[in-house]
Amino acid sequence: MKKLLFVYGLLVVTFLAYIWYFVLRDEAPTGWNESAAGLTGEISEKYVMVTFQSSLDYWRTSMKGFEDAAQQLNVSVEFQGATQYDPNEEITVLEKVIARKPAGIAVTAINPEALNPTIDKAVAAGIPIVLFDSGAPKSKAYAFLGTDNYDAGAQAAREMARRLGGRGKVAVVTQPNQLNHQERTRGFEETLQKDYPGMSIAEVADGKGDILVSSQATNRILEAHPDVQGFFATQANGGVGIAEALETLGLAGRKVVIGFDTDKGTLDLVKSGVIDATLAQGTWNMGYWSLLSLFHLHHGIVAAGGGEGSHPIPPYMDTGITIVTRDNVDDYYAK
Amino acid sequence: MKKLLFVYGLLVVTFLAYIWYFVLRDEAPTGWNESAAGLTGEISEKYVMVTFQSSLDYWRTSMKGFEDAAQQLNVSVEFQGATQYDPNEEITVLEKVIARKPAGIAVTAINPEALNPTIDKAVAAGIPIVLFDSGAPKSKAYAFLGTDNYDAGAQAAREMARRLGGRGKVAVVTQPNQLNHQERTRGFEETLQKDYPGMSIAEVADGKGDILVSSQATNRILEAHPDVQGFFATQANGGVGIAEALETLGLAGRKVVIGFDTDKGTLDLVKSGVIDATLAQGTWNMGYWSLLSLFHLHHGIVAAGGGEGSHPIPPYMDTGITIVTRDNVDDYYAK
Repeated sequence: MKKLLFVYGLLVVTFLAYIWYFVLRDEAPTGWNESAAGLTGEISEKYVMVTFQSSLDYWRTSMKGFEDAAQQLNVSVEFQGATQYDPNEEITVLEKVIARKPAGIAVTAINPEALNPTIDKAVAAGIPIVLFDSGAPKSKAYAFLGTDNYDAGAQAAREMARRLGGRGKVAVVTQPNQLNHQERTRGFEETLQKDYPGMSIAEVADGKGDILVSSQATNRILEAHPDVQGFFATQANGGVGIAEALETLGLAGRKVVIGFDTDKGTLDLVKSGVIDATLAQGTWNMGYWSLLSLFHLHHGIVAAGGGEGSHPIPPYMDTGITIVTRDNVDDYYAK
Repeated sequence: MKKLLFVYGLLVVTFLAYIWYFVLRDEAPTGWNESAAGLTGEISEKYVMVTFQSSLDYWRTSMKGFEDAAQQLNVSVEFQGATQYDPNEEITVLEKVIARKPAGIAVTAINPEALNPTIDKAVAAGIPIVLFDSGAPKSKAYAFLGTDNYDAGAQAAREMARRLGGRGKVAVVTQPNQLNHQERTRGFEETLQKDYPGMSIAEVADGKGDILVSSQATNRILEAHPDVQGFFATQANGGVGIAEALETLGLAGRKVVIGFDTDKGTLDLVKSGVIDATLAQGTWNMGYWSLLSLFHLHHGIVAAGGGEGSHPIPPYMDTGITIVTRDNVDDYYAK
C-alpha cells in the first residue's frame, strides 16, 4: 500500500512536471516567434498583377518574380490582363480587380495617361498600387519599378562604341511614339554625341515594333548609307528584323547589331552571332520588388511623415539592365 | 484498493493523453511555421551601417529605418562611422567592419571615388554592400539608395515658380564641389530655363555648407541684385544662413526661401515663416530599404542570370523628396 502510494505520488509529480514543462516550453517559443515572425502575411491576402497583351512571353519573368515574393511572404497572388493592346480593355480589367478590394495591385500601364483616373480612384479608396515596366508618372500610384530607359540607351551606345573602336556611322531602329523607346534613343544619341566624337548617327528609323517593317527599314538605311557599321534596336522585334535583313543581304556578322530584351528569337541570334549583344531588362526584379512594395504599403511598414506628395516607400526603383552576349546568353533562356 | 487502482489508471490515461496532445500540438505548428516563415533571418546575422561625420543628426532617421527593418526581419544591426569629414578615416572604419565579415554593409560614401577599392574588395570576398545617401557609381556595390538630386532641384524650381507666380530673379546658395549639390543646382537651373521663361537666375554662390558663409553670400547677392525675389539653398546650413541674413536685413518673409533637409534649425524657420519650404529627403527609406536589399543579397533571394554587370537586386532606388511647408512641418520634427 505504501509502495503504491509512492508510485502514485511519483506519478502526480511527474505529471505536474510535464504540464509545467510543456506550458513553459510552449510559452517561450510563442513569445519568441512573435518577435521573430519576420515579414509574413496571410494566405488570404491577395495581390494582383495587371498587364496588357497578357499572353506576351515578356511578362513571364515578372510574374515569376511576383510569385516568388508571394511565396517568401506567405501571401497569395493572381494575374489578370487585357488580352489586346487596348487601353479600354485594360481599364475594364483594372476596374474589376479594384472592385474586389485586393491587398495591392501591380499594374503595367499601356500608355502613360489612360489609366490615371482608375489608378487614382483605387489609391483614394486605400488600395495600394504600384506601376511596373511602363509607368504613369502623373498618376497617384506609390511607385514605379522599371528600366531606366535613358541609361539603357547609354549602355547600348557604349557597347556599340566599344565594338566599333569608337569610330563609324550607326543607325537606330525604334518606335518613335512610345516614351520608353524615345528615352532609349535619346540616351543612345546623347552618349555617342558626348563621349564618342568619332561616331555619328546616320538615321533613326521607325520599325513599328514589327519584324518585317524593321527588316525593310534596315534595307532602306543600307541603300542610303552603305557605310553604316552598326544598328541599335530599341525593341526585340527590331533586332530580329535587322538580323533578317542582314542575313538576306549576306552581311550577317559584318555589321554590329545591338538588340533589346531576351525573347527566344533574339537569344538564338545572339548565340549564332548575328546579334552581337542584347539588353536584358530586370523583369524578375520588377515583379519581386513590386510585390514587396505592395506588401509594405498594405501592412503600413512605411516612412513616417506624410500627406500629399510624401513617399511612404521608394517612389522609383531602377530594376537594372544587363548586357547579354554570346558569353552569358545561356543564362537567359527561360528555365 | 480498487478505488485507488481506478484513480491510478485514470491518471495514467490522462498523463498519456497529455503527452499525446502536446506532442501533436507541438508538431503541427512547427510544420506550419516552416512553410509560412516569411522573410526571417537569425539574430546572429549582423548588418552594419557605416557613415562619415557620424555624430550628424542627419543620419538618425536612416539609422532608425535600418533598425526598423532589422526588427521586421529578426536580424541584428550595428552602426560604425568615421567621426570626421575624412576619407581615410572612413576607409579605416570600413576595413575594420569588413574584416569581421558581417552579413552585409550599408555605406554612405564621403566622396564618389575614395572608398571604391575597399568596397570592391569586400564585394569580391562575398560581402554584400549597398550605398545610401551618397553613392560611388564606379564601385562594385550592388545598389545605391538615395535622393534623385536632379529631380529634387527640379521640384525646388517648380515650388519657387509657383510662389513667385512664374516671374522674377532668383539665386542659389550651394556647395559647387559636391556631386549631389551640382545635380540639385542643375535640376533647378534647367527646370527654370525650360518651363519658366519669366524667371532667371541672378547668381549661383558657394555657401561652403556653412551658416555664416551662406549668410555673407546672401548679403553680397542682395547688394549686387536687390531685385532677387527668391533663394534656393541646396543644403541645410545654406537655408539657415540665408534666413539669418534676411532677418538681419529686415527682409524676413519678403523673399521666397526654399531650403533643404529637415534639421531642427530649418524646421523652426519653416514654422516661423522665414523659410517658405524645405525639401525632406527619404532618409528612413534609405535605411530601411538598404537593409532589405542586403538581406536579399545575403540570403540569395535574387534575380537569376548573372555574371559581370548583372543586377541581382534593383541597382538604384530613389528614396523620394517631399516638400515641407508650414502645413506639414510638424510631421517632420524628430519624435
